[in-house]
Order: sequence, then structure tokens, then C-alpha cells
Amino acid sequence: MDEVFMKRALELAAKGAGNVNPNPLVGAVIVRNGEIIGEGYHQKYGENHAEVNAILSVEDKSLLKTSTIYVNLEPCAHYGKTPPCAEAIVKYGFKRVVIGALDVNKRVAGKGVKILEDNGIEVKIGVLEKECLALNEIFYKFIAKSEPFVISKWASTLDGKISTHTGDSKWISSEESRQYVHNLRNRVAGILVGVDTVIKDNPLLTCRIENGVNPVRFILDTNGRTPIDAKILEIDNGKNTFIVVDEKIDEVKIEKFINKGVGVIKCSTKEGRICLKSLMKIIGEMKIDSILIEGGSKVHASALKAGIVDKVIAFIAPKIIGAEGKSSIGDLNLDLMKDAVTLKNPTYKTLGGDLFIEAYLR
Amino acid sequence: MDEVFMKRALELAAKGAGNVNPNPLVGAVIVRNGEIIGEGYHQKYGENHAEVNAILSVEDKSLLKTSTIYVNLEPCAHYGKTPPCAEAIVKYGFKRVVIGALDVNKRVAGKGVKILEDNGIEVKIGVLEKECLALNEIFYKFIAKSEPFVISKWASTLDGKISTHTGDSKWISSEESRQYVHNLRNRVAGILVGVDTVIKDNPLLTCRIENGVNPVRFILDTNGRTPIDAKILEIDNGKNTFIVVDEKIDEVKIEKFINKGVGVIKCSTKEGRICLKSLMKIIGEMKIDSILIEGGSKVHASALKAGIVDKVIAFIAPKIIGAEGKSSIGDLNLDLMKDAVTLKNPTYKTLGGDLFIEAYLR
Repeated sequence: MDEVFMKRALELAAKGAGNVNPNPLVGAVIVRNGEIIGEGYHQKYGENHAEVNAILSVEDKSLLKTSTIYVNLEPCAHYGKTPPCAEAIVKYGFKRVVIGALDVNKRVAGKGVKILEDNGIEVKIGVLEKECLALNEIFYKFIAKSEPFVISKWASTLDGKISTHTGDSKWISSEESRQYVHNLRNRVAGILVGVDTVIKDNPLLTCRIENGVNPVRFILDTNGRTPIDAKILEIDNGKNTFIVVDEKIDEVKIEKFINKGVGVIKCSTKEGRICLKSLMKIIGEMKIDSILIEGGSKVHASALKAGIVDKVIAFIAPKIIGAEGKSSIGDLNLDLMKDAVTLKNPTYKTLGGDLFIEAYLR
Repeated sequence: MDEVFMKRALELAAKGAGNVNPNPLVGAVIVRNGEIIGEGYHQKYGENHAEVNAILSVEDKSLLKTSTIYVNLEPCAHYGKTPPCAEAIVKYGFKRVVIGALDVNKRVAGKGVKILEDNGIEVKIGVLEKECLALNEIFYKFIAKSEPFVISKWASTLDGKISTHTGDSKWISSEESRQYVHNLRNRVAGILVGVDTVIKDNPLLTCRIENGVNPVRFILDTNGRTPIDAKILEIDNGKNTFIVVDEKIDEVKIEKFINKGVGVIKCSTKEGRICLKSLMKIIGEMKIDSILIEGGSKVHASALKAGIVDKVIAFIAPKIIGAEGKSSIGDLNLDLMKDAVTLKNPTYKTLGGDLFIEAYLR
């Protein structure tokens, strides 16, 4: 039964997607005599944690003494924007706490569990641990490295092409796959594209789902070539869009962006291209915990070469366009197949007729 | 219960793979009081059909009068290399016949059922029909069109590459995927590659499984460039290997092949390349019911453009090699994504870490 209630906690946790970064997604379920009597989740960064919302959902607090609380992540033990959840659980005298996965946040790891156990509460750890770790993979990376969790995402034909030789790409993937991308944009805090994609496709890169949150937009643009009338610079009057330029750029080239209210990030370069490792450090300092790379193919290749990618997501449509089409991933300068970038733990599912692949780089 | 016994019939049928072409794969199961009392399958072209082998496996023939026979394909009604199976079933007085799928062979379709019903035998049709049709997709195409069922097969990285820019391709796919290819080579009657693949890889294209049958080998070689010492010409002293050349080729160029005992097929060309439509007619006349195209990329592209492909099988390894690598499918001269070759009924499964995709062209 513990797994059933943990699954519900995970469902609740996922509802916070897009609104809690860089906090983790957390859900909590309060169960008494095998029945759910309270539920809650972390809804918004800076507001109540999941455990507190679950407790608040139970009118008769005296019931909590004979209840179990299920939570996908270890209850926090530190004073942050809100008081520690472990203490709240102790205060209401829960009988038992079931935790999906421990925290890796140095301020928390194991400390929440210690507070609970020191107060005589029975604690069980590791229920649906794999699922709990997966749901918060962004959080775990960001807490450990202070750098964003990076996802490279593309949609290609079965023969690995993202457009025809004329540049036409409408549409490779299914409606369902494109809908999934909007959910992904809601989940991540930031999005990254190359300036060529902005020039060619003039995309908005917004999250087009109900109550969806637009990610912060970063454009790799060493020499400041982004067209000043690009749609992406119009959203929120330029706010939350950043042009990433060579730190040695001529100031004249970036004036127009600054005047328009668009952010400009100066970054070191390597062989004439933005150094992505340095950029990830800068983005991490901005408290952006996750980046979705949406292309083009050269940006995907640079990100793979720089070793910044944590995960790839590929949509493969059951179509063939032939060798003249544009390849999904740019040059990697590899001579031997044994040196290919190897993806770990690939999982596959179908999505509206497309094949959906998720895999990891580490 | 009918499905359980039909499944067993299908298992038995599959054992004939490689030995019965261009006949169908057929298995038969005899059941009495819910118990299997006899089994058989079509083991070799020209020898007993499945029904007869199943009947022979039952010692006490008097039991057959109270038995049901399950067979994945409609029992034949015509005198071919063996007497009609429908008559054998009548002769032994079976109570009931369960058929997976009707035959489409004009000499048979519905006639077997009619013989059975006219003799008062209860007939049920369509149990596991989809699986029964799929198992004999080669047979159905060949009977209907007198042309081989054509499968285009390749293994690529996730970004659609079959080798690095240096030509290195060892190994893209997993051991399990490569094993699957040998099973596929056992199943088909013929295999087709381009001369460039012979020159570059010097492959054997043999079926390396126990009791496996090597397919007949066809090399697309408009100008007779196949190296006379190529390994593929050494198998069976050149027997069952055919060089397909331009019908207008200079006889001098093909003498060495003929002297070596290698077959030479002269075929019409289109824009300097072998006309694959014409070649499929020739191969059909040779009673080769199926062709596995194993590349290279230009041959796959030509086959798709010629419209001869019935099915594609792709192994996608969780690797990335980058844009410099060689694309799985050659040029198709398509300007718009909406004109892409669209694959129908794609199915996906994992195979030793690779992704295995099967899809149809019609």
C-alpha cells in the first residue's frame, strides 16, 4: 500500500511543475486507517512546502497523531523561506513518515530523518525511490553542482533529419509530440537556442499550455546578430530574454538590445563560439536550475562536445527524408564508431505515432 | 482456448523459416478433449504440408474423428507437389477445423473451406488472424503480385548515421540486433546490396545461425565493378550469387564472372542505375519470394524511390556520431517535409539496448 500512496504523492508533486524552480517538486499525502485524509503539494517557489499544505488540508488536526504522511522527498530540516517541515511533522505528532528519496541538499540530507527519528516517529525511506529521484533530477543536479540540468531536445525523421535541404520542417513530429514539448517548456526554468534558429525560424519558444510558465530564453549569439525585430525579443517587452555574446564584443553591437530592455550576457568564447561550460556557470548563478536546448543542430553538437548535456529527448517520426536533409546533430569530429557519444539508460515509448526516446549522458 | 492452440500452430509454422519459400509457413495442431494429440508443420518446400505432418504424428487415426485441427492458413484445395490438404482432413473425418487466415492464392482462396463445409465439417475462420497474416506477409505479397516482398534494413545511430565520415561502422548495433539480422537472412529467399557495399565492406551476407539457410545474393552492379576476388563470389563457388548489370553492358566486362560460375542478370537501367522495378519482376520469375536490402544508403534510397519496398526494419542504437557521419538513406530529392516517405503501422521494441523499428510502406 505504501507504493500506492507514494504514487499519489508523486502525482501531486508534478502539479508544481513550472512554478517551484529551483525548489524540488514535492507532494504529500496523509493517510489514516488506509484512507487518504489530506493532500498537498509545493505550489509556488517561496510559498508553503508540500507537508504544510497537506497538514492544512486536514481540518481535525487531532487525527494526525494516528496518521502516516507520505512525501516523495525527505522533509526539510532548515529554515529557508519557510520553517522546517520536519519540525511541523513532529509538532503534529505523526505516527509514521514514508519518504521516497533522501535529499542531497547538504543543508538537509539525512537531517530531516534524524529530527523525525529523534522524536520517536517511525520512518521508512526509499518507497518508489527510482521514480522519486527521476521526478526531481533537475533539483538533484542543481543542488549538487549549482549548474542547470541540461536537456537536449530535437525531433527528427527515422533517418535523423530535422528539415529538408530547403529548410522545411513543418511538421516532422505529431501533434502529441509537440504538445509534450510545451509541457517540457513549462517544467524547465530556461531555454537555449542558437541565433541561426532565431534568424531562420523566428520562434517564440513560449509554453502554450493552460497556466503554463514561459522559461527564461537564452540566445547563443557570439556576434550580436539577433534581428532586433525577432518575435522572441517582443515577449514580456524583452524581459526574460537574454542574448549571450562574446565578452569582447563591440559595445555598439549590443546597444540596441539594451535599449529594447533585452538582457545581454557577456561570456567567454572558445574557438569563436560561446563557451558553454562558462555559460552554464553563469546561468546557475542566476538560479536557473534547468535548460532545454531546442537547437539548431550546431548548438546540440557544441553542447555534447562541451559535456554539459545531462539528458537527451528525441522524437522520431516514422518518416524518411533522405541524405540531403539537415542532420539532427552537427559535426562532432569523430572518426571511429567506438568514440560515438554513448547514451545511457535509454527508454522508449510511442507518442502519437512518433517514437519518444529519453536517455542520459551520465 | 482456440487462441492458445492457434498460437502453438504459429510457433510450429515459424520453424519452417528459410526452408519452405516460396511456400507459406504453416503449422497444424490436432486437439482432442482439450489436449494436443498431434502436431506438424511444413518443413521443406516440396515435402508434406503441415496438416499431413500433424495427421502422421497421431498413431491412432480413429481419434481424429473426434478431434479439431488448428492451422494458421486455409488448407489447400489443389493438387500441387502434394495432394490437397482439405481432402486429407475430410478423409480422416475431423469434427472441426479452426483456420487463422484464408489463403489469397487464387487456386485456393475459400476453396479449402468449401470442401470442408460441403463434407459437414465445422469450420471457424479468423483466430489470431492478424498474427497469421503477419507471419506470411511474404507469401501473401508473392502470391498476389508474383514479385518478392521487399524489406529495407539498416542499423543507425540515434542521429541516423550508419558510419563515421571515415567509413567506420564497427559496431553500431548490439550483439542481439546483429543476431536478429541472421534470423532475418534465414527467413528471406534473397538478399540485395549495392556494389559499393561489396567493394567497401567485402561482406559475406551469409546466415550465421545453426541450420540457417543462406539467401540468394544479388549485387546491383550496373558496370560490372564487383572485385573478382570478393568474398561474396566465393560462397558455394559463385552459385547463388548474381551480379545485376546493365543489359547494354560490354560482354567483356562480365566474362570473368561467368567463368567463375557467378550468375549474371542483365537488367534495364534508368538514369544509369539498374531499374529496380524490372529487377523485382526478374527476381519474382526466379521464384524468389522475398528480398532483404542491406544497403548501402544509395540502394535504400533507390528502392524507396522506385516504390518496391514493402517494409523497413531499422535498428537504432543509443549513440550519436554527428553530421559528418554517413546518412542511413541516400538522396530522395525531396524539398518539403510533407513529401517525406511516410511509414505505416510502425511498431517499436528494444533489442539488446537498441531500438528495433518495423514499419510498412503500404
